[in-house]
Amino acid sequence: MSRYWSEVTKSLTPYVPGEQPKLPNLVKLNTNENPYGPSPKAIEAIRRETGDNLRLYPDPEGSQLKSAVAAYFGEIATQQVFVGNGSDEVLAHAFLALLKHDRPILFPDITYSFYPVYCGLYGIEYRTVPLTEQFTIRPDDYLQPNGGIIFPNPNAPTGCALPFAEIERIVAGSPDSVVVVDEAYVDFGAPSAVALVNRYPNLLVVHTLSKSRSLAGLRVGFAVGDAKLIEALERVKNSFNSYPLDRLALAGAVAALEDREWFERTRQAVIRSRGELTRKLRELGFEVLPSGANFIFTRHPGQDAGELAKSLRKRSIIVRHFRQPRIGQFLRITVGTDEQCEILVAALREILNA
Amino acid sequence: MSRYWSEVTKSLTPYVPGEQPKLPNLVKLNTNENPYGPSPKAIEAIRRETGDNLRLYPDPEGSQLKSAVAAYFGEIATQQVFVGNGSDEVLAHAFLALLKHDRPILFPDITYSFYPVYCGLYGIEYRTVPLTEQFTIRPDDYLQPNGGIIFPNPNAPTGCALPFAEIERIVAGSPDSVVVVDEAYVDFGAPSAVALVNRYPNLLVVHTLSKSRSLAGLRVGFAVGDAKLIEALERVKNSFNSYPLDRLALAGAVAALEDREWFERTRQAVIRSRGELTRKLRELGFEVLPSGANFIFTRHPGQDAGELAKSLRKRSIIVRHFRQPRIGQFLRITVGTDEQCEILVAALREILNA
Repeated sequence: MSRYWSEVTKSLTPYVPGEQPKLPNLVKLNTNENPYGPSPKAIEAIRRETGDNLRLYPDPEGSQLKSAVAAYFGEIATQQVFVGNGSDEVLAHAFLALLKHDRPILFPDITYSFYPVYCGLYGIEYRTVPLTEQFTIRPDDYLQPNGGIIFPNPNAPTGCALPFAEIERIVAGSPDSVVVVDEAYVDFGAPSAVALVNRYPNLLVVHTLSKSRSLAGLRVGFAVGDAKLIEALERVKNSFNSYPLDRLALAGAVAALEDREWFERTRQAVIRSRGELTRKLRELGFEVLPSGANFIFTRHPGQDAGELAKSLRKRSIIVRHFRQPRIGQFLRITVGTDEQCEILVAALREILNA
Repeated sequence: MSRYWSEVTKSLTPYVPGEQPKLPNLVKLNTNENPYGPSPKAIEAIRRETGDNLRLYPDPEGSQLKSAVAAYFGEIATQQVFVGNGSDEVLAHAFLALLKHDRPILFPDITYSFYPVYCGLYGIEYRTVPLTEQFTIRPDDYLQPNGGIIFPNPNAPTGCALPFAEIERIVAGSPDSVVVVDEAYVDFGAPSAVALVNRYPNLLVVHTLSKSRSLAGLRVGFAVGDAKLIEALERVKNSFNSYPLDRLALAGAVAALEDREWFERTRQAVIRSRGELTRKLRELGFEVLPSGANFIFTRHPGQDAGELAKSLRKRSIIVRHFRQPRIGQFLRITVGTDEQCEILVAALREILNA
């Protein structure tokens, strides 16, 4: 604390990301990174852009990337696309531009823990809505007066996906406020709400290239929605940082979005591995929530989750454990390569037998 | 406008960056980019980092980059360094974390036009302090109650530098509020206030790698100051975006800071070209303000600045003209290569003779 800090700075409880240990030979299953590398075409595009042109500012609009996003989805205009430095930045701007109103916003009690942090940063009131006993979102719970709604689909850290009709029920149920669907993990097995944006002017869908495009190290995210919502995001962005995406990120992101074949192959591999991992963990007595993401959320009736995480760490396997109400006995485990999943399962078998 | 926009979004007047035209063969002297490419070692470091590791998140702390900044200056600890996605992002966080108090902040009437935009974004009151008739900052004008002070040194768009003792006078004169010195252009000929940070806990110095390190396309900036000020910036950053700097930006920035020889050679070349350009423009009857930056600020007693800019544009030469009080008859011209300066001078000679 210091007298030089602004009042809001004193009041903040910053977000704590999953640790990024610098040890070699880790089986790192704690931050939902993709086990496969990015598209070779993205790597190639970045290499081509790496040269004297770095002396020049990037395109402040990110026009080519917006076009690539629009082309990827089809029936979306570039004016319906916003791009930013990772989906966290896109979400931050969405909170300030579209979710800051007189009424409190709504989000699940168990969800991405950055949401209440943004509320603290921008002075936004919120009310959490409990997930069901099965850790799913019940749309009817969101049919109440609100200043906005945000939820991930699939939800994090549960991995549970909401069916298309239920997303629409939430969006249609609050026509006077903005509904943000955070689709960071959608490509691993959930229906995308992008198909709804041309029908609902209050819907904003946020994506990242960190997960299904294997580009966590490049920091690119985007939002798709009605042009008026995008304009609000542009206004905030242009009052904050004119050039949030560097030349290399823009070039790599465009190529990654265009390489559909690599995208399909790697995401299907993750989906297959997730099925195998789920089956094997259930054989060991674990409860595994149905996952539409590149991670699973699991607990064992006879084991303390914190102890399990510690035992895994001793074996150089890192998973994520959230010490918070309702989910303190769960572990969130990223789906790695089949080899990494084997190492994990073998370690858990050993721990359970000890 | 839309009912979905937050009140602050409706009230914003976003910043407008210098245009980035996509035409070939332009003599582009409008956004103060370095005419020389970045250090070949930075290019090499980025190439080395371009691979499968991009699937992994970058270091959220940017520790290596902080060490490189600390090593560059000497007598600075890593806890005294903050890194961000361009100095615009660093400045944005500084406004919210350190300049938002009850009293209005102070900055010059003619200065970087992003400052009032940040104030609008975060609801910060400000009062502008007129530059002298010679377009310089007078330290005594800042000895008044304030919630904070910010000014660039050299100032933009004038290019005028403040001597070391006068910077210190401003910093020492407001011990109860934070003084931010924005040193985007400092390496081209102004004394750096970094030498003062260990003596003044209220001083924050902001740098960019876009100008003297030729990395405008990579988006890297940093701040140096007392550890308590840095902690405030970290709190805001970690409530906004955990990973603002991608792996390639981190790698390139470290290498650029380490390559002192390239840095010296290229900045001296720009300084030499600036001297030549100034001399030639004065021969043509232009008034040129003394510049410590990689641009000059100039007017001609017999020519309208807007018309001059238009005539230059017809010849594919782009310079910056600000339509605002006191400086409407000036042009801001980036110092290009000697060849670009020659083309500019020849074009101006032609226009004056027509």
